[in-house]
Parts: sequence; C-alpha cells; structure tokens
Amino acid sequence: MNTFARVFQGTAFTSRSPKEVAILQDHLFCINESGIIERVLPPGDADYEAVRDSNPVQRLAPGQYWLPGFIDLHVHAPQWAQAGTALDIPLSDWLHTYTFPLEAKFSDLSFASEVYRDLVGTLLANGTTTALYFATIHKEASLLLAEICAERGQRGLIGKVVMDDPGQTPEYYRDADAQTALADTEQFILAVKRLAPTAKQGVYPVVTPRFIPSCTDEALKGLGELAARHDTHIQSHCSESDWAHGYVRERFGKHDAFALREFGLLGDKSVMAHCNFLDDEDAALFARTGTAISHCPISNAYFANSVIPIARWLDRGVEIGLGSDLSGGFSPSLFDNARQAVISSRMLEDGVNATFPPGRRGVPESRITIDEAFYLATAGGGESLSLPIGRLAEGHAWDAQLIDTTMPGAKLPIFSASEPLHDIFQKIMYLARPEHIREVWVQGEKVHSRAPDN
Amino acid sequence: MNTFARVFQGTAFTSRSPKEVAILQDHLFCINESGIIERVLPPGDADYEAVRDSNPVQRLAPGQYWLPGFIDLHVHAPQWAQAGTALDIPLSDWLHTYTFPLEAKFSDLSFASEVYRDLVGTLLANGTTTALYFATIHKEASLLLAEICAERGQRGLIGKVVMDDPGQTPEYYRDADAQTALADTEQFILAVKRLAPTAKQGVYPVVTPRFIPSCTDEALKGLGELAARHDTHIQSHCSESDWAHGYVRERFGKHDAFALREFGLLGDKSVMAHCNFLDDEDAALFARTGTAISHCPISNAYFANSVIPIARWLDRGVEIGLGSDLSGGFSPSLFDNARQAVISSRMLEDGVNATFPPGRRGVPESRITIDEAFYLATAGGGESLSLPIGRLAEGHAWDAQLIDTTMPGAKLPIFSASEPLHDIFQKIMYLARPEHIREVWVQGEKVHSRAPDN
Ligand SMILES: [Zn+2]
Ligand SMILES: [Zn+2]
Repeated sequence: MNTFARVFQGTAFTSRSPKEVAILQDHLFCINESGIIERVLPPGDADYEAVRDSNPVQRLAPGQYWLPGFIDLHVHAPQWAQAGTALDIPLSDWLHTYTFPLEAKFSDLSFASEVYRDLVGTLLANGTTTALYFATIHKEASLLLAEICAERGQRGLIGKVVMDDPGQTPEYYRDADAQTALADTEQFILAVKRLAPTAKQGVYPVVTPRFIPSCTDEALKGLGELAARHDTHIQSHCSESDWAHGYVRERFGKHDAFALREFGLLGDKSVMAHCNFLDDEDAALFARTGTAISHCPISNAYFANSVIPIARWLDRGVEIGLGSDLSGGFSPSLFDNARQAVISSRMLEDGVNATFPPGRRGVPESRITIDEAFYLATAGGGESLSLPIGRLAEGHAWDAQLIDTTMPGAKLPIFSASEPLHDIFQKIMYLARPEHIREVWVQGEKVHSRAPDN
Repeated sequence: MNTFARVFQGTAFTSRSPKEVAILQDHLFCINESGIIERVLPPGDADYEAVRDSNPVQRLAPGQYWLPGFIDLHVHAPQWAQAGTALDIPLSDWLHTYTFPLEAKFSDLSFASEVYRDLVGTLLANGTTTALYFATIHKEASLLLAEICAERGQRGLIGKVVMDDPGQTPEYYRDADAQTALADTEQFILAVKRLAPTAKQGVYPVVTPRFIPSCTDEALKGLGELAARHDTHIQSHCSESDWAHGYVRERFGKHDAFALREFGLLGDKSVMAHCNFLDDEDAALFARTGTAISHCPISNAYFANSVIPIARWLDRGVEIGLGSDLSGGFSPSLFDNARQAVISSRMLEDGVNATFPPGRRGVPESRITIDEAFYLATAGGGESLSLPIGRLAEGHAWDAQLIDTTMPGAKLPIFSASEPLHDIFQKIMYLARPEHIREVWVQGEKVHSRAPDN
C-alpha cells in the first residue's frame, strides 16, 4: 500500500540515540490519515519514486529542513502572564509574593482564556507541539486550557494543580481540603477524557500535586490512587532547591523521590520537574520505575541553587526531557532551553569560581553536546511521556517544524553550498528563532504557519 | 532654539546608573542635525508643547518603547561564518582546527564582502548600533569591513588583527613578521581615518594584538606605540582561560594585565575581552588606567573555564560592557548575552555542584540583575569606549531601537493596561527577539526597519 494522506519530501534531523543525530537527506515521510508516519523512504529505496509520484507531496525548498516538534515537559500555563519578571527572589518568596496571587486570578475564566490562548499560540510558534502543563487549582479554568489545546491542535497534557496544605499555601489560593482537591481532580480527569476524542492529536489529564510542601499526606495518597485508577500521567516538582529538598527531608526523613514513590506517584507516566538534588539512589529509583526528569535549565539558574548532572543521569538510564518551566524560566522556546542545557552542563563541568584550581572547580564529564540537548527536547520528551512522539521515524506522530535558514533579513550564517549538514543542524539549534519556524505540524495537521514575508 | 532635525515622542528606558533604569514616560527626544540628542523633555516641561507642535515628530504607538542601541564590545567578524558550530573543544584546539583556517579565507575579498555584509545587517537587526570588531590579519579585508560599516550606518570600531609569533600561529595564517604587522597596522589606521569623514556615525581604527600568546614582544611593543601615536582604541583578549592565563604567566612571570600595561596597551580607550582570571590587583590596574572589560557570558561558558565576577569588578569601579564574542559565543544578540550575564552571575553566586553544602557551593553576592545587564549592553559599553553613546540622554548620539510588544503572532505577555513599566522593561529584556525590533537608528539616521507585517 503506497497511498498516503500526505507525503513530505526533504531533509530532516531526528535523534537516533541520546548522543547521535540522524540526518535523513531528501527522504520521503509518508503520513497516514491518523497523522502517523507510516513509512520513511531514503532516496534509492525501491518504492521511492512510485510513492513520490502517486501522492500529494510537499517538497522543501533549498535551505529548509524538518525537525521534530519540541516537547515541553514543564509549563506553568498561568505564569505566562508574568514571564520575564520577578526573577530576583528565592523560590519560596517568589511563590508567595508573585505567583500565588497571579494564579488565584485564574478563577476568572475570561482572564484565563486570554492568557491561555496567547500561550498556546506562542508555544506553537516556538515549535512546541506537545506540552505538559500545570494549570491552577481551578478545575474549570484547567479544563478550558485542555479545550484550547484541543482546538488549536496542540498535544496538551494538563493538570489541575492540587495544593491543600494550609501550612504552606495561602488562604486565598488553596484547595478547600484534601477531599475537595481529590473530587475536583477526578472530575477534571473525567472531563478531559470526554474531551479527548474531539482532538486528533490527543489531550490528556495529568494528576498534579504541586509539590510535596504544598500538599497534605491525604491529598498525596489520594492522588496516587486516582492516577492508578484512571491510568493518567503524573507530574510534580522533585528536589528542586535547597529549601524544597530540605523541607521534605524534615517532614518525611527521606528524599522527595522515595516519599513520592510511597504515595504511588512514581511510574512510567510520571514526570518530575527539576530534580537537582537527586542522589544516586534517587536516580536509580527513577530509572527502575520509569519516572522521567523534566530538566529546566533556564529556571534552574534562578531557583534551583545548582546544576543538575544531566550527563550522569542519562548514563544511569533515567529518562530525561526538557522543560521551559514558564515562568520560573523566562523563555517559551525550547531552542533557548536546549542552548542553556549545553551551557549549564559546561559550567558544571568547568566550575564557576576562577579562584579555585581547575581540578577543584567543577565536576568532570558533565558536559552535554547540542545534539544531546536536541534529544532532550524531542525524543527524550517522547520517552518521558511514553508517547510515540519526538522522532521523525516510522510509527511516530508527524509532529514537525519546518525551519527556513534562508529568509531575507534573518538568514542563518551559511555561506557555502557544501556546508556539512551536521554544521547546518548545529547552526539551526544555536541560532534559530521563531521567525525561522515557518510551519508547525501536529499529528499530520498544520497548526501554525507564517506567511512568506512574515 | 526649539527647532530640531527630528523629535521622537514616546516612553524610553535608559540606564541612570549601573543598578538603576530610568523610565522616561512619554518624553520628547530632540535630535539635532549631527544626530545628537540635544534636549530631553518630560511632559510638563515648559517647552514640551511648543517643541512638539513646531517640529517633525515621530510618535510611538501604544505598546512601543525606545531602548538605546546595543554596544557589542567583542565581535570576531569573520567567525560569523562558523557561528553555532565547533563549540565542543578547548580554546587552543578551536583556534587551530576551525578558526584560523576560516579566518585565512578572508584574503578573498569577495568572500569577506559576503560574510561582512551579512554580519553587519544581522547585528543591526539585533539592535546593535555600535560594534567593536576583530577582523583578520588582512588589511584590505579589514578596511572593507570598515567601509561596510560606514555604508550601512553602523558605528564600527575595527581592528586589523596582529598575530606574528611563529610558535603560536600557523604558517598559513600569520603576519610575515613584526615589522610587516606594524606597517600594515599603521596603513590600516590611516586608511580608516581617511574613511571616517564619510560616515556620520563614525568608524574608528583599533590597534588589535590578537592576544599575548600569538604576538612577539616586538609586535606588542610596536602596537602600544602606534596606539599612542595615532590615539586609537586598543583591544585584545586578557586572562580568558586557564590555558591562556597560564601561558602568559610562564612567558612573563606576571598576569596579562601587567604584561599588557608594560607594552602600552592599557588605557582609557582599551577594551579587553573576557578577563575571567583577573585578580584584585589586575582589576585595580584596569580601574586606574580606565581599561574596560568586555564581558562575553555566552562564549565564556564554552572557553573561559569559569564565570567572571562582574558584580565584584563593577563595585571596584572597573568599566564593563557586553560582548557577543562571535563565534566563541554563538549569538549575535546582546539580548541573549544580557540574559546569559544574569544567569551566569546567579550560577556563580549559587554554585553548580549540588553535592556541596550551600555555603561552600558558590560565591556570595555575585548576582547581577537584568537592569545591570542592560546597563552593560548600553551605557557600560559607551563608557568602555569613551564615546557619548549608550544612553538616551542629552549630549548622546541618537542610537536607538524601537521595540514593539504588541505584534500579532509575537506579542509579549502583557495582559493588563496597568502593567508597571518596569515589568514591561523586564519582559522586553527577557523576551524580545529581532522581530520585535522594528526600527534601529544610529546617530539620528534610520539604518534598519521591518515592514509592519514582516
Ligand atoms: Zn514548576
Ligand atoms: Zn575573542
């Protein structure tokens, strides 16, 4: 069967492994009615010409390339309204002074609609085809975010946030009690599951305890049970900062990872943000349970008091993807976060304090390459979510971004027709901006495009 | 006299001091024929209405703001052709494997023209109105870069690079000998001085020993003399990496700063890139001589083995500006570099290695704010160059960028008409991209603009 809904012809970059980028030069990507890549044909394949000549083909122009869509594993959707501000204070102050008052305003559905529509459009324009969202404690506004994702064609995984511990949350922004938080969460799960069939690309409910400090034991336990009963994804924050890590050790006498496991919150569909203070045992527990790390390199520079050793945890078999952490991180772009992931890893390797001798300054073998950061932003995110996304490969969704390197006024610095494709790939990863992303596709549908001179 | 060549009406942000951003709401900026800001009038000033009503006024639309143009204190112009690539190796290897072979190609004036035109246009599109350039060893191609700056309206300070030490430079890319290097430099200085009167905004020759390791004593001494004789700016690299810092200590038994001073290369018009390994005495020497630091935060993550303590040196009265260091740094944007300056300073303060206790992890009081990073990119750059630029203030050149926060498809996350202007400023600094820069002006002339839907 060589008939497809759509066929794309062009050169694509996609991760073969965490360390290795495959360069698929002038391949055919054959998409079926469900938006899945059914076949990938290299030039020279016996079927190449027949497929190309008997299907509707979109062919890339010279200087255009396909990348997989990005998968953002950590977005606080309401915080988009404060992105770029209030970055000069510690995590706990930041929550109480800026973030909780802002999130409380999302009881207003018209405000929520304005911010969420703007955010989803912005993320698509930045090449993010899948996003794992924290919404707010409000189940209606959280459902609205799922509806906007469904409508705009973005693959959204959305959590109604649970935070019910009066000791760590303000009265004006808190679940009434654990029972209410659990009941609202279950209603939210069911509502998103009813919505899901309307969205070809999928929308998913996510069990979302904000983090251990903001939740009672009863809520944490109940959420673990809800996730098991409804087979949902789970997200939270884990061992982010000195303060958060220390708080959990005080309360439970153990690290976040083990506390979360006891509440049934670790598993193959779990994604934990930050994880800067994991130790080897925590990481082994992550690897054993299939729990993923959402690495948020920009945010971590402001709130996590350290750099997470990504190379080390990749070596230990932990699943890792990339998160913008809006608005702890200011940028909605996973290009920016991929760049910072490389930079932060180099600063961990070399260290920062020039008054120490080189041997005592950093942590050897911590660096990752831009190829590995690309993996985190794409295939690593797909593995973290246990969804067939993040690769331009057979059996995966056609979630893709079309990068144009040649636009007048914004061309990338490519001056030779014989420039190696891997150099072009690196230039894209380091230099592309939203204006270079001309089209974005999710599950075989075009969800964003920019006019030729826009 | 209330008649001006041009008057701009709108809200602008400009540094009052390293720590403080002045918000000039709905001011009039009155520009004379020379492109200098002659008066800045706040609403309520006795002359405000008369000036507004009797001059050609360009008024900003709602959601538009003026920033000073950026001043990039460190750009290797030829390396634009490799930006974003080859970032995985140490400085010394990077020079010999990638950078010297590329720079050697700039003996070809047609290649030089293509790359330099693209670079100058790209920098202007990124809001960079003044750039301090390293060209190559070739005096003709270096002069071509000056001509392109003159023609495109960018304020360019350009150096023909000197590197004559056979021990540290390859045979295919080296000045023939010290005398030739000095003669070529002097011819270059005179040629740029002849060109300067054709450029309203100014173009300037810069004495440019690449760095101590690539120059003989004779060349270094001669360059100091040339700079004094022709009263030129001076630029080089100083104490960038463990290797470079160690090399100079071996050769001269002292730090770069003191070695450079003995060759006559420190002074009020000197700008030294990186400077990561300065100690207190080196910094005091910089402050005493008026020598400036070009801080290159993105590049430093790859090649400088440490984070420079910017807050400390600002406190000690050292002049500091920001540099992209293309292509040791991948980004042509000083927005990107300002963001990384903040991020790197936080990582220096907090430290990177989570296995250390907080008290032993970082260097207290190292963080800078985005307001201070903005200062480095603007007023700090102007002071470093001893030129009246980098501030939207009387007596300064009208070098400015018009930022639009409201564009469809790329609006910044501003959802309230009453959002504080300082929050809007921070959102611009953290989130603006080239597409938000609608106009760029240098010395009172518009040198870049984007069409409304471009
Ligand atoms: Zn978060
Ligand atoms: Zn340099």
